[in-house]
Amino acid sequence: MTSPEAREKAVLEAVGERRELVNEAIPEELPITRPERLYEASRYLLDAGGKRLRPTVLLATGEALADVEPLSTPYREFPTVEGPSKTVDLMAAAVSVEVIQSFTLIHDDIMDDDDLRRGVPAVHKAYDLETAILAGDTLYSKAFEIMLETGAESDRTVQALHVLANTCTQICEGQSLDVSFESREDVTPEEYLEMVEQKTAILYAASAALPAILLGADQDTVDALYGYGLDVGRAFQIQDDVLDLTVPSEKLGKQRGSDLVENKQTLITVHAREQGVDVESLVDTTDVDAVTEAEIDDAVATLEDSGSISYANDKARDLVDRGKNRLEVLPDNEARELLLQVADYLIERGY
Amino acid sequence: MTSPEAREKAVLEAVGERRELVNEAIPEELPITRPERLYEASRYLLDAGGKRLRPTVLLATGEALADVEPLSTPYREFPTVEGPSKTVDLMAAAVSVEVIQSFTLIHDDIMDDDDLRRGVPAVHKAYDLETAILAGDTLYSKAFEIMLETGAESDRTVQALHVLANTCTQICEGQSLDVSFESREDVTPEEYLEMVEQKTAILYAASAALPAILLGADQDTVDALYGYGLDVGRAFQIQDDVLDLTVPSEKLGKQRGSDLVENKQTLITVHAREQGVDVESLVDTTDVDAVTEAEIDDAVATLEDSGSISYANDKARDLVDRGKNRLEVLPDNEARELLLQVADYLIERGY
Repeated sequence: MTSPEAREKAVLEAVGERRELVNEAIPEELPITRPERLYEASRYLLDAGGKRLRPTVLLATGEALADVEPLSTPYREFPTVEGPSKTVDLMAAAVSVEVIQSFTLIHDDIMDDDDLRRGVPAVHKAYDLETAILAGDTLYSKAFEIMLETGAESDRTVQALHVLANTCTQICEGQSLDVSFESREDVTPEEYLEMVEQKTAILYAASAALPAILLGADQDTVDALYGYGLDVGRAFQIQDDVLDLTVPSEKLGKQRGSDLVENKQTLITVHAREQGVDVESLVDTTDVDAVTEAEIDDAVATLEDSGSISYANDKARDLVDRGKNRLEVLPDNEARELLLQVADYLIERGY
Repeated sequence: MTSPEAREKAVLEAVGERRELVNEAIPEELPITRPERLYEASRYLLDAGGKRLRPTVLLATGEALADVEPLSTPYREFPTVEGPSKTVDLMAAAVSVEVIQSFTLIHDDIMDDDDLRRGVPAVHKAYDLETAILAGDTLYSKAFEIMLETGAESDRTVQALHVLANTCTQICEGQSLDVSFESREDVTPEEYLEMVEQKTAILYAASAALPAILLGADQDTVDALYGYGLDVGRAFQIQDDVLDLTVPSEKLGKQRGSDLVENKQTLITVHAREQGVDVESLVDTTDVDAVTEAEIDDAVATLEDSGSISYANDKARDLVDRGKNRLEVLPDNEARELLLQVADYLIERGY
């Protein structure tokens, strides 16, 4: 077993290599055409950065399935189960998933009235509300257009589109639950995890399952990979909740403790409330701008005392272990090793 | 030739018969499930009414292509070109198109800050901004999910999804142009018509072309029907612009003259400006609520004097005639006659 540090380094390197290729492909799949302002706004967050974790999962899963050496095979002409005579454009699928992610971020930032994202103003701040709604809507259909252009055979494309459309529906349902939780004080950990599955994990599930569908893997493999994504995706969100409390604002690219300030439920607060913590009084949210670092520090100390942060960490670890087990459907190769490392990284990452 | 009155009566009757079936199918395709508030908001405008013109075009085009007597054949099991042994669910496609229409209305009302739609509060007024964005997003993916369930063979489904996704992208582009026009005083009639094609006509084009794709018609037929939709769809929007000026608010379900009040470009104002009319001074838009009926009457008189309303009427008539000619690809039957009548109705309707 490698150390977390060595693993993080290996994952970031592997993610970085694929990120460069994804970053090249984004303007190819989503060129800035007329009306320019609309497409500039649509590209704004995509161009602002992002780790490209979901595309990495998609591309690496393809490599594991095809049993090829990582980065040895062009993603644009990736061999299917029929062999190299029939190829699909796996990169298009990877970009499609990232485009969906970007659309949801743009609309979520409006709904949550968040000012910052990835260290830059949210789209509705950098542009305006109208443009942000429309940029999200444009990315939405573009993601479908891009996914329709992988060159996969029609049966597989139809199945891929099913997954993509259902993923979007579930993201909306999850976001709706998330918003409804803000006015509730009796959310259970189970409800919270269900919300996270729909809002966040589902796109990891799609990212892992889509290459299997497009390349023609059997249904058991598709299902196992989907399960991997659901597990590690939930773990990812739980870790995000932890990081929101523990990582300095500059590094996060948004205010530390923003979930507490905005009264957003997390697995941590849901657990703390069950332990009798008065979560609503942890920080004074009457004047959001007046919340101090010291106030957040005190809140974190309380949440540590109630065991809520450890609870979240343990839950994330359980989910990652379960997700990793599901990868036994894949051939034992370097790309599978990367997917295992990505799973660990999702809960060990510092931000 | 029948009189406009007889034609309107025949069209409304035919639309009404199909509307009932569409209205039954909507809750089947889009049941109110958890989270209820989200699905209630998603269904709100769909349930508030609407003529169902686009679904009617879709269903009638299917009937014309299959050369069956109108309403004689179940839409849920509609015969393809292979004959009655292979059927598709044409009603699902019809609902999908109406769901797309509803999604765009919800988001457009936010962008235009319109309070009323179909005589009821807009979704962002009846609920709130967050819910309206999310309801639109939910309808968006649901439309794709529904279109994936027609039972058509995969090649045709893929082509149908291409049309649907491209339609949505173009609607966004058209809406973006429309918004950008509000701050411009040099929009040409050609630019305006291009915007209308993308924003409005494209969904009529999709409605006419989709049944041909799903039922397996040849590409020439698909293209001709698409052209029919583009032509009559533009005519529809031009007529909408005229009606916004000439129909009482109660009948419109929104304020008469709202386009003028909101500084929205129409073919009428674009033409009037070219004739030297000071369009910006037609109504005082500094206090929108203070605009009187008399002010609108005066504005309409000015636009009549400049020939702008006749110009719009003539343009709409030309487009309708062109669209009707394209229907020669269809067998000569009752359903085709209905599509011809619908084209005339779109510019003869009173509201």
